[in-house]
Amino acid sequence: MEAAASTEARVADDRVDYRTDPSHYKHWRLAFDGEVATLTLDIDEDGGIRPGYKLKLNSYDLGVDIELHDALQRIRFEHPEVRSVVFTSGKPKIFCSGANIYMLGLSSHAWKVNFCKFTNETRNGIEDASQNSGLKFIAACNGTTAGGGYELALACDEIVLVDDRNSSVSLPEVPLLGVLPGTGGLTRVTDKRKVRRDHADIFCTISEGVRGKRAVEWKLVDDVVRAQKFDEHIRDRAAALAAGSDRPAGARGVALTPLQRSTDEAGYHYTYVDATIDADKRTVTLTVKSPAAVSATTPDEMLAQGANWWPLQMARELDDAILNLRTNHLDIGLWLLRTEGDARVVLDSDATLVAHQDHWFVRETIGMLRRTLSRIDVSSRSLYALIEPGSCFAGTLLELALAGDRSYMLDDENGSNRIALSAMNTGMLPMVNGLSRIASRFYDDPAPTQAAYAAVGEPLSPEQAMALGLVTEIPDELDWADEVRIAQEERAALSPDALTGLEANLRFGIFETMNTRIFGRLSAWQNWIFIRPNAVGESGALKLFGSGRKPQFDWNRV
Amino acid sequence: MEAAASTEARVADDRVDYRTDPSHYKHWRLAFDGEVATLTLDIDEDGGIRPGYKLKLNSYDLGVDIELHDALQRIRFEHPEVRSVVFTSGKPKIFCSGANIYMLGLSSHAWKVNFCKFTNETRNGIEDASQNSGLKFIAACNGTTAGGGYELALACDEIVLVDDRNSSVSLPEVPLLGVLPGTGGLTRVTDKRKVRRDHADIFCTISEGVRGKRAVEWKLVDDVVRAQKFDEHIRDRAAALAAGSDRPAGARGVALTPLQRSTDEAGYHYTYVDATIDADKRTVTLTVKSPAAVSATTPDEMLAQGANWWPLQMARELDDAILNLRTNHLDIGLWLLRTEGDARVVLDSDATLVAHQDHWFVRETIGMLRRTLSRIDVSSRSLYALIEPGSCFAGTLLELALAGDRSYMLDDENGSNRIALSAMNTGMLPMVNGLSRIASRFYDDPAPTQAAYAAVGEPLSPEQAMALGLVTEIPDELDWADEVRIAQEERAALSPDALTGLEANLRFGIFETMNTRIFGRLSAWQNWIFIRPNAVGESGALKLFGSGRKPQFDWNRV
Repeated sequence: MEAAASTEARVADDRVDYRTDPSHYKHWRLAFDGEVATLTLDIDEDGGIRPGYKLKLNSYDLGVDIELHDALQRIRFEHPEVRSVVFTSGKPKIFCSGANIYMLGLSSHAWKVNFCKFTNETRNGIEDASQNSGLKFIAACNGTTAGGGYELALACDEIVLVDDRNSSVSLPEVPLLGVLPGTGGLTRVTDKRKVRRDHADIFCTISEGVRGKRAVEWKLVDDVVRAQKFDEHIRDRAAALAAGSDRPAGARGVALTPLQRSTDEAGYHYTYVDATIDADKRTVTLTVKSPAAVSATTPDEMLAQGANWWPLQMARELDDAILNLRTNHLDIGLWLLRTEGDARVVLDSDATLVAHQDHWFVRETIGMLRRTLSRIDVSSRSLYALIEPGSCFAGTLLELALAGDRSYMLDDENGSNRIALSAMNTGMLPMVNGLSRIASRFYDDPAPTQAAYAAVGEPLSPEQAMALGLVTEIPDELDWADEVRIAQEERAALSPDALTGLEANLRFGIFETMNTRIFGRLSAWQNWIFIRPNAVGESGALKLFGSGRKPQFDWNRV
Repeated sequence: MEAAASTEARVADDRVDYRTDPSHYKHWRLAFDGEVATLTLDIDEDGGIRPGYKLKLNSYDLGVDIELHDALQRIRFEHPEVRSVVFTSGKPKIFCSGANIYMLGLSSHAWKVNFCKFTNETRNGIEDASQNSGLKFIAACNGTTAGGGYELALACDEIVLVDDRNSSVSLPEVPLLGVLPGTGGLTRVTDKRKVRRDHADIFCTISEGVRGKRAVEWKLVDDVVRAQKFDEHIRDRAAALAAGSDRPAGARGVALTPLQRSTDEAGYHYTYVDATIDADKRTVTLTVKSPAAVSATTPDEMLAQGANWWPLQMARELDDAILNLRTNHLDIGLWLLRTEGDARVVLDSDATLVAHQDHWFVRETIGMLRRTLSRIDVSSRSLYALIEPGSCFAGTLLELALAGDRSYMLDDENGSNRIALSAMNTGMLPMVNGLSRIASRFYDDPAPTQAAYAAVGEPLSPEQAMALGLVTEIPDELDWADEVRIAQEERAALSPDALTGLEANLRFGIFETMNTRIFGRLSAWQNWIFIRPNAVGESGALKLFGSGRKPQFDWNRV
């Protein structure tokens, strides 16, 4: 279970691979019935992504969530006719019992944190689809719904619990494991469900959970329904939610063909994305390339290109690269963000996205870009953008520089180095705090934000970019090499933990949302608890779970 | 330095005592010149509150901050004529170098966290006074201003840095110590000063800091002023800020006479507050008593009673009890909140507070109540309110029950048990998220909030309190003893760390402010870093500081 802790010296097939497709699912069944998709969780207890534990009681690990993430992508892109999604269980009496505890007990700190981050992103993606894509989700909790199982339900628009005098919803992490319901559970109970704090306090400290009328009164579920009526109720609710959706009837989907990638010692290489690792310097250069030309200007042309359409293919490649770097290369602490190509082509491509933003396929592609960029924001790695001649930090790709902790733009002698904004930078790719990266950069101060927005379409010189506050430093050719080298070396010398904390505090500005509270407040507390002896020590609750032995706590409160 | 870690078995004089007065200050000089007070930091390097380190370079420990907290109280209450406060240094070339690093290196995790919490509260108190009490603060940084020294400056309304080609402001925690600027530094740089995130990123990763023009351009300070002009500039700014204040000219202050307290094995005993510890059960019963009658209804009468006026004396006693329990009794994890006395008297007392809220002394007393209740909110202890016949959970004292994680109200047979609201519950004692505890409880939903507010003045039966959502459970006499006992025993059995994380996530509702972000996001990350080997391990940066040895980091990012 220390599998992901240090992969530099490992062979490639030990790495986690996030690519999958329904023919390879071990744990989920994905079925379609007109405008309703059903995702049935039926976990293969011997199908863990790592050895050493059984996935009993419909409990999950990273492998289960990789399939879920893939299934959601398929619904988004391959099934535009789907308007509502039902989550349910294929096992009797149990909906889902959450993250597998033995897996957590065996895992390294880094594995646990990375696992929680990805599962958080997948659940945020469910809500993102509900908010932006006309997909509505119902948790059909046809059995015990515990821990991460309830957290999955919390990410849905509606939670329906079977009333069989036995099945409850619960968050037993605190009483059973000495950790938090850290996959958004605590935050969604308050921010989304508005469960009163004293009810939440009781709910989160009793292992048996809450069922029946009280579960509805406390707002933990939307309905409790008897077993005989359960399926019918779910069908009705799925139909009702589908009725409110603007997803297109009769549209043909876009197949998410397998992502082509070559992997070697140096990194991950795709058509439009390249991640080249420098193991000695503990850096990776992540380069995103523009296409040679805009090859699709109408939705029909975009659909014809399908998964090869540049905005989608680039986003999928970038997403995969990010996930690989995060999971498989923990000690690569500094990501150097670069672009290569033709800024004009990126701006023209953005114009087609903006023009057709209401078309379902464009909307989904913009969503994919938004979520991929959001993954960068919450990646616990330092991010420097390097803006040099031949780059194309324009529009959508300028977001990479804006996501950076710093950006260095070469003030070149012949004056060819430019950045440019498009309408994509003015709010179409918001951060999880709800603001564009430019507005967030200026703490939503209208003056600098509007000054930057007014430059949409214009190529901006280093001086102009600096004056607008869009880049950090603009060294000239004399200074560039040294300044960039020293900045990298200095960063790479700092404590990785301190940088994680620093970046988590600086990146989101002052505007908190449910998602920033999940990643900022909840995850930070969980990370703390995840290394405290009361949870993970030899006598800690997480370690001893299932052993029959009682945890020994240090009773001091900190 | 493990002094505070486990005090149950210790003698009383090993405990930290938060009581002091200017005649006992070792580190601060407090001077008054008409409407301007000057707090000069001139730290006695041999005056540490614990042995084992020297407070060199005007660096501070908890003892220094206890004096600062006391000095601010004296300015508030004893010097109503003061309208602006200047912080400066009595040492050449150095304003303040922050928290003493050797002290941090020697301290237990709990001591560090508790120290940071108190210093955070003191700095928040500076801003509270600026916002609510007409006191404005200037940091006259007449030398190097580093780490916690700059964090103190950040809490002021204005920061003026001497321009001597040497003095800088800096947050060198990340590069030098591998920890965060955790006393609000990171949060104030973004939320208050609106320093752009890339500038903040550079600022927080260079140990030498920023000075001169750049410090102003990056908004790190308000002015840089040459040494020759410095004193004059500060005098001018202090006068200008004083001019905008509504603090009264010619009023006589109220002496904060020494707090009378008896301490024994069982706890802390005051006139209106009692804290009785049950070491076996790891609980403390914190009882607040009403006065026998309202003894002052006009400002003149209140002033005549001075520090013995019930609202002020009770708040001071409660504040002292909270600080003692937090610092000296780490393993007492459950606080049982009780009241005793006459609810009618509390409501009548509240009426006098509301009627005279604009009088400076009443305003300061309400501020003291507000800050004391806020201390409870951020105390990492479980809080149960026990509402029984003979109690007086009314108005200001009802806030104690509303601060609780849960409240149990006995549904007594003869129907004498009542709670009641006063106008003090409808927004005059806001939490740090800016909302009343009732509004925060209902996530600012107007319907239940206004329904509760409509009950101001009425005695509420258990059923009525339950229907309004103001209490958690109302067991009858048959169930009361068992239900309350079991709730205590179950709570006391849970992991202290998990409870700390749980409570930090549930208590503030969904509304984040700078202060909730300091306690929630920043402190949580700092707590995590404070127990990571990269900071506190044998080769960690915090441990090795000053040794000449380089820290050895685990390079994996988490």
